[in-house]
Amino acid sequence: MKIHDISMTVHSDMQVYKSRQEMRPELKITRDFDDSAARETTLCMNLHTGTHMDMPLHFIPGGATVDQLDLSRLVTACRVIDLTGVDLVIHAEDLMPFDIREGETILFKTRNSLSEDFDFEFVYLATDGAEFLAAKGINCVGTDSLGIERAQSDHGTHKTLLGADIIIIEGLRLKDVPQGRYELCAVPIKIAGAEAAPVRAFLIER
Amino acid sequence: MKIHDISMTVHSDMQVYKSRQEMRPELKITRDFDDSAARETTLCMNLHTGTHMDMPLHFIPGGATVDQLDLSRLVTACRVIDLTGVDLVIHAEDLMPFDIREGETILFKTRNSLSEDFDFEFVYLATDGAEFLAAKGINCVGTDSLGIERAQSDHGTHKTLLGADIIIIEGLRLKDVPQGRYELCAVPIKIAGAEAAPVRAFLIER
Repeated sequence: MKIHDISMTVHSDMQVYKSRQEMRPELKITRDFDDSAARETTLCMNLHTGTHMDMPLHFIPGGATVDQLDLSRLVTACRVIDLTGVDLVIHAEDLMPFDIREGETILFKTRNSLSEDFDFEFVYLATDGAEFLAAKGINCVGTDSLGIERAQSDHGTHKTLLGADIIIIEGLRLKDVPQGRYELCAVPIKIAGAEAAPVRAFLIER
Repeated sequence: MKIHDISMTVHSDMQVYKSRQEMRPELKITRDFDDSAARETTLCMNLHTGTHMDMPLHFIPGGATVDQLDLSRLVTACRVIDLTGVDLVIHAEDLMPFDIREGETILFKTRNSLSEDFDFEFVYLATDGAEFLAAKGINCVGTDSLGIERAQSDHGTHKTLLGADIIIIEGLRLKDVPQGRYELCAVPIKIAGAEAAPVRAFLIER
C-alpha cells in the first residue's frame, strides 16, 4: 500500500485565496516549555483555508452541512485526470475525452499544482464544465486551486455543482501524482452546521 | 464496507478539557446570505479540542510534529478493547489479558464514551499502563477521554508514551463500537510545526 499525501500544509505564510490578509491562518502558542510542562497551540482559520471541502450551504441557503455528510462519499475510488495542458479555463469539451460516469469522484490535476504561491490567474472550472459534471451525476470533484471558479459574478460553477449535490474539494496538491485510478480518503473535520471544513486528503495505491 | 464514525462534533458547547472556558472552540460566520452570495465561517480552536492527536512536541522539547508524521501509522489495522469495566484508572494489569503485540494500534473503549459532558473523574491511563504499552512497542494508543492522563504532576503517562514514539489519540467516541478488530483512519490536519492536530477518526469494517 502506497499513500500519496495530496494536502497543503497549514502555516501562517501559506497561499490563501486572492492573497487576502484576513484569510491567513493564525497559529498561536498558548503554553510552552518556558513556564509549563507542555506546549499547546491555538489555530484560527477560515474554513476555506488550504485543502478543504465545500458543502451545499456554502452557496445555497439552508443547504446541507459538513456534519451531515455520509463519510463513504469521501472514502471512495477516484480518478485523477491530467488537465495540465489547460491554460486558464476547464470547459466541458476538456472533460469529454475522459468517459466520466455516474457516481465517480474526479480530481483535476492542473498547472495549479506546480506552484505554492497564489496565482490570480489560476485554472478554474467554467459553468459549462460544472453543468457537464452535474449531467453525468458524479459524486465529487476535486481541484488543485483554492477556488473551483474565478470571477464568475453569478457563481455558476459552485451553484451548479452544489445544487446537484456534488461535493467540492479545493486546494489539493497533485504535482507528484500521475493520472490514474486511486482510493481517495478526504474526510472533513466534523464541525456542527458548517458550510466547509478542512480535510487531510490522501490517495491510496494498492 | 461499513464505516463507524468515532469522532466528536466540534461546536461551541462541546465538552472541553476540565471545562475550561479558554478551551472552547469559537465559530464565527464572517460572510452570509444577508449581504453576500455565500456563507463563510472562521474557526478558532485549541489544537487539543475534540478528537485530536498528540505528537511528541506536546511534552518533549524539540519533539516530532504533526507535519512530520508518516500517514501509514494512522491508516492501519487496530483493535478496540473493552475497558468499560474499569472504574477510574487503567493499569498494566487491566491490559495484560489482551495479548497486546509490537506495532499494534489499541483503542480504549471506556465509560468515557457513554457521556457527552466533561467528567472530572474521567477514566485515564496510569503511568504503569503507559510503561506496559511502551515495553510492548505499540504504534498508537487511542482513548475516549480528552486527556489520556489526569492530575499526574509528573505527566508520566504522556511522557512515557510520547518518549517511546507512541502516537496518542484523544477524544474518541466508541459507544456504538463493539470490541474487535477494524481498520483505523485517523489522519490529522497537516499543520506546520504543531504539537497536535484535530483528526476525523473512523473505523472501517469489511
